[in-house]
Amino acid sequence: MTQSDPQWQALLDRWQTLADLGGIGALLGWDQSTYQPPAASAGRARQMALLSRLRHAEATDAAYGRMLDEAGGRGDLSPEQTRMLAVARKNFEEATRLPSAFVAELSEHGGNSYSAWTEARPANDFARMVPILEKTLDLSLQAASYFPEYGGALDYFIDQSDEGMTAAQVDEVFSGLRAALVPLADAAAQARAPRTDFLHRHYPQAAQLAFGEAVIRDYGYDFTAGRQDLTHHPFMTRLGGHDVRITTRVREDDPGDALYSTLHESGHAMYEQGVAAHLLGTPLGGGVSAGVHESQSRLWENLVGRSRAFWAAYFGKFRDAFPEQLADVTEEEMYRASNVVARSLIRTDADELTYNLHVITRYELERELLGGRLAVRDLADAWHAAYEANLGLRAPDDRDGVLQDVHWYFGQIGGAFQGYTIGNVLSAQFYAAAEAANPGLEGDIARADFGRLHGWLRENVYAPGGLYTPTDLIQRTTGQPMTVEPYLKYLREKYTELYGL
Amino acid sequence: MTQSDPQWQALLDRWQTLADLGGIGALLGWDQSTYQPPAASAGRARQMALLSRLRHAEATDAAYGRMLDEAGGRGDLSPEQTRMLAVARKNFEEATRLPSAFVAELSEHGGNSYSAWTEARPANDFARMVPILEKTLDLSLQAASYFPEYGGALDYFIDQSDEGMTAAQVDEVFSGLRAALVPLADAAAQARAPRTDFLHRHYPQAAQLAFGEAVIRDYGYDFTAGRQDLTHHPFMTRLGGHDVRITTRVREDDPGDALYSTLHESGHAMYEQGVAAHLLGTPLGGGVSAGVHESQSRLWENLVGRSRAFWAAYFGKFRDAFPEQLADVTEEEMYRASNVVARSLIRTDADELTYNLHVITRYELERELLGGRLAVRDLADAWHAAYEANLGLRAPDDRDGVLQDVHWYFGQIGGAFQGYTIGNVLSAQFYAAAEAANPGLEGDIARADFGRLHGWLRENVYAPGGLYTPTDLIQRTTGQPMTVEPYLKYLREKYTELYGL
Repeated sequence: MTQSDPQWQALLDRWQTLADLGGIGALLGWDQSTYQPPAASAGRARQMALLSRLRHAEATDAAYGRMLDEAGGRGDLSPEQTRMLAVARKNFEEATRLPSAFVAELSEHGGNSYSAWTEARPANDFARMVPILEKTLDLSLQAASYFPEYGGALDYFIDQSDEGMTAAQVDEVFSGLRAALVPLADAAAQARAPRTDFLHRHYPQAAQLAFGEAVIRDYGYDFTAGRQDLTHHPFMTRLGGHDVRITTRVREDDPGDALYSTLHESGHAMYEQGVAAHLLGTPLGGGVSAGVHESQSRLWENLVGRSRAFWAAYFGKFRDAFPEQLADVTEEEMYRASNVVARSLIRTDADELTYNLHVITRYELERELLGGRLAVRDLADAWHAAYEANLGLRAPDDRDGVLQDVHWYFGQIGGAFQGYTIGNVLSAQFYAAAEAANPGLEGDIARADFGRLHGWLRENVYAPGGLYTPTDLIQRTTGQPMTVEPYLKYLREKYTELYGL
Repeated sequence: MTQSDPQWQALLDRWQTLADLGGIGALLGWDQSTYQPPAASAGRARQMALLSRLRHAEATDAAYGRMLDEAGGRGDLSPEQTRMLAVARKNFEEATRLPSAFVAELSEHGGNSYSAWTEARPANDFARMVPILEKTLDLSLQAASYFPEYGGALDYFIDQSDEGMTAAQVDEVFSGLRAALVPLADAAAQARAPRTDFLHRHYPQAAQLAFGEAVIRDYGYDFTAGRQDLTHHPFMTRLGGHDVRITTRVREDDPGDALYSTLHESGHAMYEQGVAAHLLGTPLGGGVSAGVHESQSRLWENLVGRSRAFWAAYFGKFRDAFPEQLADVTEEEMYRASNVVARSLIRTDADELTYNLHVITRYELERELLGGRLAVRDLADAWHAAYEANLGLRAPDDRDGVLQDVHWYFGQIGGAFQGYTIGNVLSAQFYAAAEAANPGLEGDIARADFGRLHGWLRENVYAPGGLYTPTDLIQRTTGQPMTVEPYLKYLREKYTELYGL
């Protein structure tokens, strides 16, 4: 149907309203995490709940459902319209199939679970969480049961964040990855560690922020349609069609923390900023999946930002910003210090080689819980056993074991982790495709010239937004389905050279 | 009825929802004026319009109207409940009596008028605005005609911002004021001007902000429930029950600009922060009128902030912040430089003595326009004539004449200006009452001790919020109706001494 068809216009209006309510909600959240004064917390939570109710009412409105039915029944839909309606229908089903009493129970349980976790973790008290987590598991399985068209609960949860992917596919990718990564991480951990002493000197906040922002301006992050502010836990957020903001935090004795958080979030943000203008405000007006999103943050953070070419371009500027701190440091030392490998207990502190082992561990535990093969009461022991197998380490307690991450304690088990590693895998697959299409890309990076890389990603990954399923996008853009080979090749070459493995 | 009566609870919930929608709208506006990146403007305007529609739908819901009717008919209302329902009813009538087609016309015309003004002012082209302003006048009269219970259009507009006041009352106060101010301003303008050269040295932004924030912390502005950010046109805004923020701007060659804007907005904000907690989220949960609000900003800006006692308390700290800039300046010179009187063409640059003459001029022109005694096409000439009569000055063009202020060009004539001068008048009346109740207040100020002043204002002006009508509040708090005497006494004593009149 034509764009000006009244039926289509009415749908576009609905979608714009839903997007605008989403943007307003994002502003409430952004402010909460950046500037909101402390006494405002309770009132802000109430405002956010109100806005969620208003958005839910719009998203589940029966008249809207009929509009989707009627438009979906027309024979004159373009492929883009067909896809918009398919995604809108999926969102509508997500929002309407769960009974509202169940949604309320989920939400209340999630709140209770989170607040119990904030006490149980410092107290190292997993026993307290066991009955709560058992209920979380029951509720998660019940939620999935409203979507019987999936092969199982895990397939449902994976599809929520990474449309079209299945547990079987993730299993296969992850097992190939683990087989390759465990020996690589072992070998790197036994090699001589690079020098990192200079990273613990004093790096003033303002200069750190200015340096990071100069880099992402070079990358192609558009500050006229975004900004960076300080927060506790860095994130990217879309507040509107042309308002995509990032946040970071600064540790004055660890400049890598702010820099790599800025580069990471800028990757998410450039993806959102690059979505074609005519898709904004529609169901396709954003990144297509958690995994593809993470691939973009990881690409700019790691494949670009932790490369030797990156430091060839930026070490001089970095030293200009911090001349005393870096007076006795070489470019090569900086590169090596940005790529230290160490087996550690904490996922969020992990390096490129070991990070995925943390993720795979969690994903497999989720899979066993949802499959009924692991009981919640045995989860803490299973965690320790998995860490010994995958990382050769055992946490001294549950605080840094099964209680480590908040994800399961928000009230859902399933689908929370796999996107991180899918993102890493895809980051190398997309980068390899960009390189194949733009020979000599590394030389561009060494000159701080990101025009070809950003342009290629914009055209092939960003502009389509949600127009293709993740599976189709990966196939179109890289010529093959998701595959772990480019990622393993990247890691093997980089770390073999770095650590003389 | 009891607070826990379900009928009352349902009303409180409605009011809380309306307040929360207002707070969300305030956040959208705050962000727009502080941090929003430029490309986001169009999307933000759409989000704000959406939120206005949602709020309007809540505010005009027929079911809500019936709730007000039913509650209003009960015989067991407390005085506080009676007042809440009266204000809620007034707001409901405001929101429902104008036909929606007329509201849409008003809004569209206002947008057109504003954007024409942004071009006409720099072009000094009042002729272009004449037909637009004629329509504005027609629409303003038509809006007022939906409220025939008022004595006339001006009474209606005055009541919107200063409930209970009438044009007759304002006329009387203003004419007494003008008669006293014109000769005082004349005399001051002929006296020797104080030294101000040192105010045009370089005052770095960060130190200016830190100084102003230290002062308002002393005043009693609560930074745990608010914050200050930078903007172009300073304002105060309530984003939630415990979230009242202010904004300022800094000119590095004029430290008074930021300082007095900060003190001014802190007065508005302390009023809002001081409203009793149980009134928050109800129709009484904010300042009661434009005039009373402005009285609090003016009290802290002028009666406190431009006093000799203020500089006795702060000159040492100000000089500690700017030692080189103030090396050759005495405390007395600082005090005098903060109180320069000069007849000028621009309202927003005016001093305490002449400011009200600018306001009275505008108010009287509005009155003549609404009364049909002045035609829009004669407004530019009438402006010049009034300035000659009231201020002894004539603008060289209409840019700094009739095109000077945006107020009329937003799409309404009536009620925009009188609150500024009512605020000045009331600031002295409230301050005199505070002084009568707290002998030696000036000594407190000279020690930067604002506990008694802030405590008295909190108890007598802030905590009641909208519980009393402005008229009742003034009577209860000062023992008499609004009167110009304390204000004239304050100005006469201060400026006679300062200028040796």
